[in-house]
Amino acid sequence: MRDPDRVVPHFQEQLATLKERLLVMGGLAEERVRAIMEALVERDLSLVERVQAGDEPLNQLHIEIDDRCFKLLALHQPMAADLRAIVSAVKINTDLERVGDLAVNIAEAARRYAMHAPVKQLIDIPRMGDIAQSMLHDALDSYVRRDTALARSVLKCDDELDALKTQVFRELLTYMLQDPSTIEPALDLILVSRHLERIGDHATNVAEDVIFMVSAQDVRHHAPDSLE
Amino acid sequence: MRDPDRVVPHFQEQLATLKERLLVMGGLAEERVRAIMEALVERDLSLVERVQAGDEPLNQLHIEIDDRCFKLLALHQPMAADLRAIVSAVKINTDLERVGDLAVNIAEAARRYAMHAPVKQLIDIPRMGDIAQSMLHDALDSYVRRDTALARSVLKCDDELDALKTQVFRELLTYMLQDPSTIEPALDLILVSRHLERIGDHATNVAEDVIFMVSAQDVRHHAPDSLE
Repeated sequence: MRDPDRVVPHFQEQLATLKERLLVMGGLAEERVRAIMEALVERDLSLVERVQAGDEPLNQLHIEIDDRCFKLLALHQPMAADLRAIVSAVKINTDLERVGDLAVNIAEAARRYAMHAPVKQLIDIPRMGDIAQSMLHDALDSYVRRDTALARSVLKCDDELDALKTQVFRELLTYMLQDPSTIEPALDLILVSRHLERIGDHATNVAEDVIFMVSAQDVRHHAPDSLE
Repeated sequence: MRDPDRVVPHFQEQLATLKERLLVMGGLAEERVRAIMEALVERDLSLVERVQAGDEPLNQLHIEIDDRCFKLLALHQPMAADLRAIVSAVKINTDLERVGDLAVNIAEAARRYAMHAPVKQLIDIPRMGDIAQSMLHDALDSYVRRDTALARSVLKCDDELDALKTQVFRELLTYMLQDPSTIEPALDLILVSRHLERIGDHATNVAEDVIFMVSAQDVRHHAPDSLE
């Protein structure tokens, strides 16, 4: 039999490290989104390249965190709230890794975009980038602070992001129909807006996992209003 | 202390049920991809609507399977291979649910596409749909049969899907530049090809999880060639 007094503090220490590493990963993911949006707006090709080439630290953290989760499950056989925290970490880890991939996808579109004359002054797309970043930030914050109110506020932002995506699509389509020279760059902006929407989706997944972790309540596949 | 003779058969039975349910979910996800590709090609709006409205069974299974995984972890505290099978099931479950969402995304594009004259005879996009479906099928099959060779064959298909996506993009861009009346429907076809690529990505995730589950080897973030 294990001696709980000996095992528990060690376990709690490792769980705290897991959360720290997940936060480091979240910070990296957020920074990649910030950098690629700056590169897109400033048409800064060297920054685009840095983002494209810079996914490795996130990929390494992805593997490391998965490994930490697995070892915590295997060696400590946690129960209830701790088990939920680790299963949530497995899922959040996947979401954050995808955010890094999406920054690479945005970089590909940004590189092509910089080769054409600008379609228009970018307003809604940087706004989408800001919302996606703050959703990510708040979702991670809600994980660490176990703050379900903050997690629920993330779910609400997703509607705003979806509305902006639709607005961007309609506006860019108008440009494309009026002036064929805008077709290629406008197409890339549409793809960027889709990638940003997906980053919002990943932040939403994280927030849903936090609500499950804290309250053991599964809020997926329900309207956010039903939570209150 | 638990009596292993009493607990283990019960656990193995529940683990078998978990796998069965995951297979049911995979079958549903696959069927949704098949149906929406048929609806797109046949311009069948009533089938488009059925796919759009039909995500609920997958969503319910998503919650049920997550719950099964959580209970298996909490009540049986599995070790080694069993633990890996359950952690993999948590991840595969997420991937399959996203495939259902992507079928809805394709349905949205297919609905708009059917309102315009066809851009061209669809060849590469149905081909992408076939590849994505067979990747899904093989990935699930490799999970149940614990067949890493089959899982690795799935990873290779992903390159073919990516190449087709790039080809589709270039071809449709040519149409858009030559004839503005094709801009809207071609844009929707580009979005469909991106959704199909993502379905392939989810099948790839499943295959990578199977390799981890069977061999305890993390093959993510490496070229498939490094596996052999």
